Amino acid sequence: MAEHPDIVQRLINAFARLPGVGERSAERFAYHVLETPADEALELARAIRDLKRDAKECKSCYNITGKDVCRICRDKSRDESTICVVETYQDVTAIERTGAYHGLYHVLHGHLAPLEGKGPEQLTIPRLLERVRNGRVREIILATNPNMEGDGTAMFLAQELAKSDVKITRLARGIPAGGSVRLVGKTILSDALEGRTKL
Amino acid sequence: MAEHPDIVQRLINAFARLPGVGERSAERFAYHVLETPADEALELARAIRDLKRDAKECKSCYNITGKDVCRICRDKSRDESTICVVETYQDVTAIERTGAYHGLYHVLHGHLAPLEGKGPEQLTIPRLLERVRNGRVREIILATNPNMEGDGTAMFLAQELAKSDVKITRLARGIPAGGSVRLVGKTILSDALEGRTKL
Repeated sequence: MAEHPDIVQRLINAFARLPGVGERSAERFAYHVLETPADEALELARAIRDLKRDAKECKSCYNITGKDVCRICRDKSRDESTICVVETYQDVTAIERTGAYHGLYHVLHGHLAPLEGKGPEQLTIPRLLERVRNGRVREIILATNPNMEGDGTAMFLAQELAKSDVKITRLARGIPAGGSVRLVGKTILSDALEGRTKL
Repeated sequence: MAEHPDIVQRLINAFARLPGVGERSAERFAYHVLETPADEALELARAIRDLKRDAKECKSCYNITGKDVCRICRDKSRDESTICVVETYQDVTAIERTGAYHGLYHVLHGHLAPLEGKGPEQLTIPRLLERVRNGRVREIILATNPNMEGDGTAMFLAQELAKSDVKITRLARGIPAGGSVRLVGKTILSDALEGRTKL
């Protein structure tokens, strides 16, 4: 505790609260801040402050943004007729990273969990239904996680949306690229068999 | 680049400049900041800002401190008659961590490197000699690194201090605890032989 100068120790403590950062890494970060030019170190401080001050949910899709409407919803080149429904904004990042999707998103901010009091109203589901009613949406891709909660949420949405005439799809399931038929679990293999496609 | 909301990407970039932090860790840190209570996140920002604003060198020993004189030099319970000379303030931390030393320090801020223009005046050597002249110092422990530069610096200091009547010692060299006679390099083994002690 008293090994570092107080002024350094305070920063070490703050860094050590980041996920996966142990005492040694926190020390390394703090001494880096101490030795780095003020501009660079203060940019980190300001980026934290600005994120906490300005980050909000996009009025349309509930993704994180610094503006009222996020960059993706503002982008006129994106296909407004397709909405990909995800659980978290980190899922948006993962899908954007593929470069394979050019539609819009809808971030639920979780999945249905009735036992924890998380119903449709606690997620952004009412607003999703509204987007479908008001918009020119032709396809909803349900990209919730392939587990019990995600599947349950997808089923619920599929039922709600059945009344509309949009096409409802979900992400394909199967063996992950690079995986092995021999080593993959039986649930994955069942999914892969069930979803087999014609060559 | 455009995968994350701009406001998040900026913080990811700032985190990624920390040593040993890759893109994925920087993302994890940024999303943690986004989701963590504002108080905790802003404490990190403020700790960085305060460190850059307030950190300075102790007027007496040149260790890092937020005050004019560092906590160790201010501590009346420490033995003022012993000064441990180290290259960096991180060496102070390492020695404090042992709990085995109760004297004061002197931080050189490097080692002698004539070819790079680093002479005694570029280090804090003049001030060390002054401390020895003015003070009640009885022992100087030379704790520079056990390599060419550190040894050279220690030799120089030993010569300079030879005129005074303080006792000059240096850290013991030998096989590190947990090491193995068989695997340790020949320099370490030579040091261990030369410095052998009576049982």
